[in-house]
Amino acid sequence: MTRVGASDDVPELARIGAAALRALLDAHDVSAVEVVEAHLRRIEARDAEVRAWAFLDPELALHQARTRDERAGSGAALDGVPVGFKDICDTADMPTAYGSPIYAGARPGRDAACVAATRASGGIVLGKTVTTEFAGRNPDKTSNPLDPSRTPGGSSSGSAAAVADMQCPLAIGSQTAGSTIRPAAYCGVHALKPTFAAISFAGMKNLCARLDTIGLMGRSIDDLALFRCGLLGAPFAPLRPAEDPLRLGLCRTPYWDRASPAVKERVEAAAAALATAGFAVEEVPYPAATPDPGALCWAVIEFEMARTLAAEYAARAASMSPWARRSVENGRAIAIETHHANLRALAACEKAFDDLFGDFDALITPAAGEEAPVGLSDTGPPTFNTPFHVAGLPAVSVPLSVAPAAMPIGLQVIGQRCSDGRLLEVARAIELALE
Amino acid sequence: MTRVGASDDVPELARIGAAALRALLDAHDVSAVEVVEAHLRRIEARDAEVRAWAFLDPELALHQARTRDERAGSGAALDGVPVGFKDICDTADMPTAYGSPIYAGARPGRDAACVAATRASGGIVLGKTVTTEFAGRNPDKTSNPLDPSRTPGGSSSGSAAAVADMQCPLAIGSQTAGSTIRPAAYCGVHALKPTFAAISFAGMKNLCARLDTIGLMGRSIDDLALFRCGLLGAPFAPLRPAEDPLRLGLCRTPYWDRASPAVKERVEAAAAALATAGFAVEEVPYPAATPDPGALCWAVIEFEMARTLAAEYAARAASMSPWARRSVENGRAIAIETHHANLRALAACEKAFDDLFGDFDALITPAAGEEAPVGLSDTGPPTFNTPFHVAGLPAVSVPLSVAPAAMPIGLQVIGQRCSDGRLLEVARAIELALE
Repeated sequence: MTRVGASDDVPELARIGAAALRALLDAHDVSAVEVVEAHLRRIEARDAEVRAWAFLDPELALHQARTRDERAGSGAALDGVPVGFKDICDTADMPTAYGSPIYAGARPGRDAACVAATRASGGIVLGKTVTTEFAGRNPDKTSNPLDPSRTPGGSSSGSAAAVADMQCPLAIGSQTAGSTIRPAAYCGVHALKPTFAAISFAGMKNLCARLDTIGLMGRSIDDLALFRCGLLGAPFAPLRPAEDPLRLGLCRTPYWDRASPAVKERVEAAAAALATAGFAVEEVPYPAATPDPGALCWAVIEFEMARTLAAEYAARAASMSPWARRSVENGRAIAIETHHANLRALAACEKAFDDLFGDFDALITPAAGEEAPVGLSDTGPPTFNTPFHVAGLPAVSVPLSVAPAAMPIGLQVIGQRCSDGRLLEVARAIELALE
Repeated sequence: MTRVGASDDVPELARIGAAALRALLDAHDVSAVEVVEAHLRRIEARDAEVRAWAFLDPELALHQARTRDERAGSGAALDGVPVGFKDICDTADMPTAYGSPIYAGARPGRDAACVAATRASGGIVLGKTVTTEFAGRNPDKTSNPLDPSRTPGGSSSGSAAAVADMQCPLAIGSQTAGSTIRPAAYCGVHALKPTFAAISFAGMKNLCARLDTIGLMGRSIDDLALFRCGLLGAPFAPLRPAEDPLRLGLCRTPYWDRASPAVKERVEAAAAALATAGFAVEEVPYPAATPDPGALCWAVIEFEMARTLAAEYAARAASMSPWARRSVENGRAIAIETHHANLRALAACEKAFDDLFGDFDALITPAAGEEAPVGLSDTGPPTFNTPFHVAGLPAVSVPLSVAPAAMPIGLQVIGQRCSDGRLLEVARAIELALE
């Protein structure tokens, strides 16, 4: 992806991405203050159109940068790099509203694990990015920076838009059905949705703990690898080249018919190009004997929403959207026995994919079934995300090349459970082969 | 268990338990104010010795009871029943300190899902029970109500002690290694540790999200069934009798040698009595090819503690115990690849038990390997809990009969994944057969 709105005006330090910034910061060629200032200028120029931020205090961000510069930098993975946080992440020094008027201005007074890890790794908490209400389906104000008449996707709307628009190099999102991979595809950025529970979700507002997963967004696979090291408290370890030949399974899922002609064409062309480039690519069916993943995913989410949003529903239902209220009510109507059967079905999905994966380095499928839809009232369907998310597998969204005027299309690359580093290596090999 | 300290003084309404209270409340034979007052009297009489409460405001509890009585009761599962909450559960109207001086007096300003569910089901939030520091291994002030020279176990120390001492009929705990089943065994109460993620942990402080599980404590299986319905937002459905013959697997685990003579004798005698009573009881080995569950459990916990407690460690390490600091430091030293291998090992444990369980209605094993140890500086080892907790299976602790002067011994009954209601039925059948 090279298309970016008003890209002529992008300050150099906002354009180059996290890994390149780290190299300049390490070499003392730039200061963290200069890095933050460049991003603040970009935000100032673009915020009226993109509206990616739920909270941003330039002075608070600059204060962190000055503190870092006074200490001359730690050399840790995220040292001096500004990061945006989806506004479901609690922050000690900023309000956290979970996309809900119920929590407007609320200050939890503590950092989520991902925020604390970012600070410990030297990163700068730039601000809080817009989330849909409680990271669900009711959108907020953010537009797609590539076409403001279109949705950026959700629920990690602000994170995807801010990274795509070079307002921050890295941002945290989350995914309960398709809320990281899909907006990344719609906005043309890279994203990693780790293996379930592999990176701590602690201190982020739960929509459905059984499925809630943190999401990482950046503008290259290398930036995602850097981000992951920082979140895990590890020093940056560059990705190794993936050894050849890699074996890929093209999984059309049961929903291939719902993909747009352009998505089908681009994903099939990518599969063909990878085969030409020497990858072993074969078609794999979605595992049989697994239940409808979309229906399963939403049934589990609604059951849990009736619990995770019970306090809000009891005290402030009028301040919840009709969607949130209806979800809580739907969830209350689901019998315990049904929910238990659904949890068993999730375990069956995990096992089916673990069995399937013996032979493949990764599966490939669309990251979203369509280009970003027009209109801001709906964040688009997670059709191609839920079939893999219910199995807890790690996934990466890789932007595919499209015509200059076209909206982005993403390739979803799905890895084996607990092999997230390896997945990034495979995704980079795929991207290199497609370039 | 009938032995209770100073039991002659126990007010009738504090003694009879949740299901019996519900019947009286439903029949309008007692008011919620009377129920709460009875428990407050019990607490007043015993708190100097047991020290089970981290926060208790009698007026706040009575206010909830008066409000309930004015509305004449809802008939919901927990209507008018006082419940204690481990002080890792956020509460909108009470402080929540997570057992740490860092959070002394902190007010999160919102209810955890289990607190909201209790309120929605008509329950009264009586107060916050003592937890070890961050629900880990560093104990606080609570003593075992059956012998104040002994630990009540932990980390759900106050919940187990308060329920055992009839200071509340029901209490919420949590378990990351053995923190619900073991203190229940030490204090002689009943406990249910549900299937992983089957009851929402949202709004409770994470020690290790991959293993953190809510725990339910009461003084009978029927009370646990009532509590579970309330937490799930369901009307109370009495347990059905478990049909005969039930097939039980006596699993000594690889750690049988570490159990005390009395525990071995009582558990073996229970297995023999169940066989005599018509249960099919056979020995089952702990699944081969699974890793050392204790070491695995603690490695996963320490890795996650380095993340979930990163903010506290960065800003307030001096206010953390040596244990907590060391755990964070140990967790930082664990390589990502090792942690990923550990997560895969947890998945392998789940699969091994799911395969094993095809033929059994439940497994039985000690709930704790020893009677409550003397001294308050250590909450005892989770030796017999971790082998099953790493597989995410639901477990119940059933007190076994012991000599009048002896400390309690518990039988751990382990059910199939996502069959928590069925497990309660099986546990009740076991208890009836042993009476």
